[in-house]
Amino acid sequence: MHKLALFLAEGFEEIEGLTVVDVCRRCGLEIDTVSIHDGADVLGSHGIPVRADRILKEISFDDYDMLILPGGKKGTENLERCEPLKEALKHFAHEGKYIGAICAAPTILGHMGLLRGRKATCYPGLEHELEGAIIFTDNGAVTDPGGDKYDAKFITGRGMGKSIDFALAIATVFAGPEKAYQVGKAIVYYD
Amino acid sequence: MHKLALFLAEGFEEIEGLTVVDVCRRCGLEIDTVSIHDGADVLGSHGIPVRADRILKEISFDDYDMLILPGGKKGTENLERCEPLKEALKHFAHEGKYIGAICAAPTILGHMGLLRGRKATCYPGLEHELEGAIIFTDNGAVTDPGGDKYDAKFITGRGMGKSIDFALAIATVFAGPEKAYQVGKAIVYYD
Repeated sequence: MHKLALFLAEGFEEIEGLTVVDVCRRCGLEIDTVSIHDGADVLGSHGIPVRADRILKEISFDDYDMLILPGGKKGTENLERCEPLKEALKHFAHEGKYIGAICAAPTILGHMGLLRGRKATCYPGLEHELEGAIIFTDNGAVTDPGGDKYDAKFITGRGMGKSIDFALAIATVFAGPEKAYQVGKAIVYYD
Repeated sequence: MHKLALFLAEGFEEIEGLTVVDVCRRCGLEIDTVSIHDGADVLGSHGIPVRADRILKEISFDDYDMLILPGGKKGTENLERCEPLKEALKHFAHEGKYIGAICAAPTILGHMGLLRGRKATCYPGLEHELEGAIIFTDNGAVTDPGGDKYDAKFITGRGMGKSIDFALAIATVFAGPEKAYQVGKAIVYYD
């Protein structure tokens, strides 16, 4: 059974983060929200307080198959200041495990040099911060599974209005395209 | 200054509810999340705990210009069992004030007979519960401002994947079309 972790930092974009949780749970996937702070209560970028399932200090990154970063300007800055999380991102990239990021959050991966030569998207205007990436500007979400199992694997999304595309791209990898299609059909493609 | 209230009941669809809050606050509108329960912490339909700004017992409905109901099957059932809320909905309808509902929640208005002869949408398959309404099945959201200022005013949405359409329809009325367009452009229409 796959297990995913979505990281919540003060100022995270609520819809970008929670749509992933919503869609993944609709697909039957196990996903934990993880606060990077000392407490489980995290305030989003639009003033919505959300309680995380777990706290970063108490988790083992090895329990997870994917690490996911929502955007929001301040949320992204807070994620980028979190050294244990950045260590884990580096480790996941080297192990060929999936990393997800949407909106401003792909810039964290860009600054770390993880996206060189890799396909990615981000919030329009931030492309120059995805160092060396092959940028896609028309897609809501971009999946780059790498060339083999040791390559880092990335799913990136453009922003809040493309949260469902980003979430379904994650669900497609971990729950399979058929399940993702069924759930997508139920929430977006009504006919 | 307009003030909006979005009601949270156990089992509310997180994205349907929180997208309205997110988009309205991006538009500079004042919107409170209001728990219909005794406590402020409310668990959504996909297991996400959210803390509401207010508790129904402590608010005065007269302070608000619009009442908004997110969907989610259990959330909608819980909202429909909340008598003070239903009294307020009736009152708002008679006063010509705005009511919003998305996904399964428009059925509450349908069961109360408030939608007779009025334009509305809802989650596909529930149309027969919008008693006497003129149903729109292709729109993400439908605004029916009524014929004059004493007519009830409704904004209804189809479901989770159309939450942004629903939220922007609300923002269009209360923040104006220009502001709603700017915010919509920033989150969805990137070019």
